[in-house]
Amino acid sequence: MDRLRIVKIGGNVIENRTALESFLLDFSLLDGRTLLVHGGGKEASQMATQLNIPVQMIDGRRVTDRATLELITMVYSGKINKSIVAQLQARGCNALGFTGADGNVIVASKRPEKPIDFGFVGDITHINTPVIKMLLHAGITPVFCAITHDGSGQLLNTNADTVASALAQALASDFEVELLYCFEKKGVLEQVDDDESVLLKINTQRYQHLLKDQKIHSGMLPKLKNCFDALSKGVSKVFIGNADMLKGQPPFTQIEL
Amino acid sequence: MDRLRIVKIGGNVIENRTALESFLLDFSLLDGRTLLVHGGGKEASQMATQLNIPVQMIDGRRVTDRATLELITMVYSGKINKSIVAQLQARGCNALGFTGADGNVIVASKRPEKPIDFGFVGDITHINTPVIKMLLHAGITPVFCAITHDGSGQLLNTNADTVASALAQALASDFEVELLYCFEKKGVLEQVDDDESVLLKINTQRYQHLLKDQKIHSGMLPKLKNCFDALSKGVSKVFIGNADMLKGQPPFTQIEL
Repeated sequence: MDRLRIVKIGGNVIENRTALESFLLDFSLLDGRTLLVHGGGKEASQMATQLNIPVQMIDGRRVTDRATLELITMVYSGKINKSIVAQLQARGCNALGFTGADGNVIVASKRPEKPIDFGFVGDITHINTPVIKMLLHAGITPVFCAITHDGSGQLLNTNADTVASALAQALASDFEVELLYCFEKKGVLEQVDDDESVLLKINTQRYQHLLKDQKIHSGMLPKLKNCFDALSKGVSKVFIGNADMLKGQPPFTQIEL
Repeated sequence: MDRLRIVKIGGNVIENRTALESFLLDFSLLDGRTLLVHGGGKEASQMATQLNIPVQMIDGRRVTDRATLELITMVYSGKINKSIVAQLQARGCNALGFTGADGNVIVASKRPEKPIDFGFVGDITHINTPVIKMLLHAGITPVFCAITHDGSGQLLNTNADTVASALAQALASDFEVELLYCFEKKGVLEQVDDDESVLLKINTQRYQHLLKDQKIHSGMLPKLKNCFDALSKGVSKVFIGNADMLKGQPPFTQIEL
């Protein structure tokens, strides 16, 4: 089976022009099949301010009303996605931008309004791999933003880490998939306030201990859940680290079952 | 050879929610291979006003400065393109959105700054068909907005009629291509102020006469040039009309060599 590396980059890389350029250069130099998933970052919030779209938060999470959905569709699938695609093309990487609606690749259902109505937020129900597999085998690099659709004409906002994990799981029967979560830290930290305390390996047992000792930063919990979900569904390897991880430069965290 | 219908819709259809829904229903019912090219319409201008991006016009044509390019990238390839893709998916048409940067399909060069600097406007230099052909043969309907790239990381604003004609020409050696320009009128009018004076056929000779008599509305001239360019490069049939043309409902204008 061909190796496929699925890389997810977060908002902190996207926001910084120089960091993004450097990341895209490293990404374009990866050999073999590649697929990129990107988040949105602060650009959507900045644009919301400019357009006077109020930001609604419930329990620290953004509510996606109709105006916000339109906004993130413009920013994620328009501005950010096409800028990344054009920059990758300039580096010889034949990128092709996607939302989950394109090619009907990622189908989601709108999250129930009870107990909390988060608006147009989608939970992934199905991944259709034929188009993606065909493109990967043809040497194309799909570039996904974290927007899905319900198959009935409605676009939905979906967590980018989950999109990356779901794609990795769906492609694990056709490729030897490695999933790399790139963010601003060097990896999962043992001490939240010590950037050098990178845990080099986390397996299920260690994960349970860390959970029990409440050592893991709350923002890291859903990411780690996505990592273990991927491993349990046949993804070969999962890593968390900063952009240097693409060059194989330690330290970074490897997640294992 | 398989028949491929390339349909271009203009801003007047896109602006009107009901008209767009009706158009997309008719489009989704076309049999055989299909490809859609869409313009932008007034949404970009409305958004420019909201974001305080000044509209600069020279000789009645919009200048694409950096802020305007970002804006149209958001509106054309984000808001409009993804809304169309999701709506086509809901009607069973497996659509996949494109700018010219995606899959490196449409390469353009920035128009020279002399005699007039129109900013980030691109003139098409090359079409790469392999990805599009592969997707068309797999039953996918590519949906293009009129943004191209220069291959060096720069997105460029390009005329949507020209994008449709260039794609038609490039695919004419692999498909029996029909090119349909849909706009708000029933076809090319003999009398500009009489919507019923539709010319049913225009051939090269008639075109020369119409030009000589200055009968053709100035806005129609570049569209007709795109039609004749397509026919001279092997496109089978070219039509101009309103959305009813998709149902084969006359009158509409057929352009012939």
